[in-house]
Amino acid sequence: MNVEIITIGDEILIGQIVDTNSAWMAVELNQIGVKIAQITSISDNPEHLVEALNNAKQRASVVLITGGLGPTKDDRTKKVLCEYFNSKFVLDEKTLEHVTDFFRKRGMDMIQLNHDQALVPECCQVLFNPVGTAPGMWFEQDGAIFVSMPGVPFEMKQMMTDHVIPRLTKLSGRGKIVHKTVLVIGIGESILAEMIESWEDALSDYIHLAYLPSPGLVKLRLSAFGDDEQKLKNEVDAEIEKLKQIIPDSIYGYGEETLAQVVGKLLIEKGQTMCTAESCTGGFIAHSVTSVPGSSNWFKGSVVAYSNEIKQQLLGVKEESLSNYGAVSEQVVREMAEGARKVLNADFAVATSGVAGPDGGTVEKPVGSVWIAVAGPQGTKAAFYNFANNRERNIIRSGQAALDMLRLLLLK
Amino acid sequence: MNVEIITIGDEILIGQIVDTNSAWMAVELNQIGVKIAQITSISDNPEHLVEALNNAKQRASVVLITGGLGPTKDDRTKKVLCEYFNSKFVLDEKTLEHVTDFFRKRGMDMIQLNHDQALVPECCQVLFNPVGTAPGMWFEQDGAIFVSMPGVPFEMKQMMTDHVIPRLTKLSGRGKIVHKTVLVIGIGESILAEMIESWEDALSDYIHLAYLPSPGLVKLRLSAFGDDEQKLKNEVDAEIEKLKQIIPDSIYGYGEETLAQVVGKLLIEKGQTMCTAESCTGGFIAHSVTSVPGSSNWFKGSVVAYSNEIKQQLLGVKEESLSNYGAVSEQVVREMAEGARKVLNADFAVATSGVAGPDGGTVEKPVGSVWIAVAGPQGTKAAFYNFANNRERNIIRSGQAALDMLRLLLLK
Repeated sequence: MNVEIITIGDEILIGQIVDTNSAWMAVELNQIGVKIAQITSISDNPEHLVEALNNAKQRASVVLITGGLGPTKDDRTKKVLCEYFNSKFVLDEKTLEHVTDFFRKRGMDMIQLNHDQALVPECCQVLFNPVGTAPGMWFEQDGAIFVSMPGVPFEMKQMMTDHVIPRLTKLSGRGKIVHKTVLVIGIGESILAEMIESWEDALSDYIHLAYLPSPGLVKLRLSAFGDDEQKLKNEVDAEIEKLKQIIPDSIYGYGEETLAQVVGKLLIEKGQTMCTAESCTGGFIAHSVTSVPGSSNWFKGSVVAYSNEIKQQLLGVKEESLSNYGAVSEQVVREMAEGARKVLNADFAVATSGVAGPDGGTVEKPVGSVWIAVAGPQGTKAAFYNFANNRERNIIRSGQAALDMLRLLLLK
Repeated sequence: MNVEIITIGDEILIGQIVDTNSAWMAVELNQIGVKIAQITSISDNPEHLVEALNNAKQRASVVLITGGLGPTKDDRTKKVLCEYFNSKFVLDEKTLEHVTDFFRKRGMDMIQLNHDQALVPECCQVLFNPVGTAPGMWFEQDGAIFVSMPGVPFEMKQMMTDHVIPRLTKLSGRGKIVHKTVLVIGIGESILAEMIESWEDALSDYIHLAYLPSPGLVKLRLSAFGDDEQKLKNEVDAEIEKLKQIIPDSIYGYGEETLAQVVGKLLIEKGQTMCTAESCTGGFIAHSVTSVPGSSNWFKGSVVAYSNEIKQQLLGVKEESLSNYGAVSEQVVREMAEGARKVLNADFAVATSGVAGPDGGTVEKPVGSVWIAVAGPQGTKAAFYNFANNRERNIIRSGQAALDMLRLLLLK
């Protein structure tokens, strides 16, 4: 089954939004053994859509289309598809009832634009949209399948989950793909490639390795292709076991796991808690941690101390430490961690103090200089980093390094 | 000038990474009046790249290619391009020197894979990469331009800024596009469309309006096409003035501005400061605020109080308020804001307390229920919201609503 994705909307071509839908769809389709052959983003110009549909039809048996189904005038996908399949609009009663209900529940008046969302091409099968007002549409023509879905991510996701994935699962059933991604922190891509070269060279030819670098991390994705899914899984797991021997401390997790999730699991296992004292990361670590569902079981809270005054008053950092060493110093970051651990009453506290940039750098402490500390029951550990990057990346990498320091401490 | 983008890498088709490069490139190109006609994402399979190059060449005069230039074995773009243009590899001395220096400065050994990054097809012009080890390549053939750049976002961005944008600016110079995006908060897409319908209908036919919804916001993008850039800008500004009459309070900013930036500007104008006391948002507001460069001038800090104990001890929330009303209540969120304002010594404090989900909801306070308060010199304001969404969106929308409440207060 060759599947392609077409995303519609000037907003992607103009860079106003980033296409996150395609990535999500690709992951879901991969899980049922379907590989995406191409993703094409086009404008909401009707002629361009027709051209893209014609091109995709020549290569793919399934074309998944997102976007252009909103109630407003710039959304023209439904009209183009109706003409493309030589159909005419009919009213879908179930959708009309749902849309009416949707507005009634919210105490809002329904307008003509909303009413028209219940019109669909007669030749399609309607895919019910329980979380929005634009229905999905499933077309079949000359053995090819075309599915039109809303571009709003959570509406598309629900429609994929409820309708499209189950239908495609039935239709597929050929080759299997098994993916597993190993998450590596603290080793650059080239050095890692050299360290694991002989392991990589010894991989079977139906197991493919990809390096996916992101700030501070390298994701190693193993993909195995074949017919026997369980056998493929076992082989991938066996390869990962060998890899673990080579870089034991640097593998922090697998798949879509975040560092915060991994730290949370370790804390739950030990029945312990954490907190943060953040200067240069400004709440990023707390946000990463509290993005994990259930984190209130192991995260107590944070003090974001963006001024020296707060470092002193809330975290008990000594005035002479600030005046003798400056806010970006080992002394201060240790006192921040130790202070947070007490005042937030947690087993572990991570603290950051650095120069995120773009301003505030000096010759001695250039932008990207960061002190990180972790205070725990066994004492306090601190380390210096220079990420030498822009504000956004300095914040992300500081947060990762801090959580990784805690992870390694918890593993001991 | 027809420009297309080809992004290379299984990681996009498999959903492992989201293609943010294309969006960034599109924004930059739009600023020089160049519109992207299509974005195509393909695998790192050599045949697929050749097919995509052939297809793009038929439609576009400039093809921008990202990805597949890393030192590792899964990166094959350079080899494919060398063959595609019937060229042979030669050593680029400047790149070799730079790569050698890059490793020396970091105290790392250079390996053969790194050395090979200095090999380039003889027929291309090398685009120097000061921030990475893979050089860019500029090819010209039969009047078409092909540019190959690294897929690592900050390397690609530097190369676009230093080389590609200046060269394409020289080559273009035809039609102009003027975009301006109006950022609207607090009104749903359909209601907004109805409110501004007569304004929208009266727009000139060379001014295009697009609705770009994102959680809690609608972005209205006006695009004007023509030859006289200044005239287009004036017309777009005049239309926005009319729009402001219709929805005065709901327009919080323009373009890529964030709510936090807008709030920061208002605070700087007034010489005032803010802080946050966060329960359900868990540091998200502090992170949004500290992502703004220079925010230390107007942001004092935050207490992320993820337990009742911390709400009491650090923010001075009364025990009886917690036991009588629960943590998610008007009483508690008011006390959080007022306590933070005092302890963090700021002019304004925003506070959140809610049920982010997926667990913790009750019949009375279902997932998505959030109390928000802003304490300021004139007293404290509080409001209840029910975002009825998933954890991630509940956090984002709570943070936006809190910052917007502060924004409206600052505008008074």
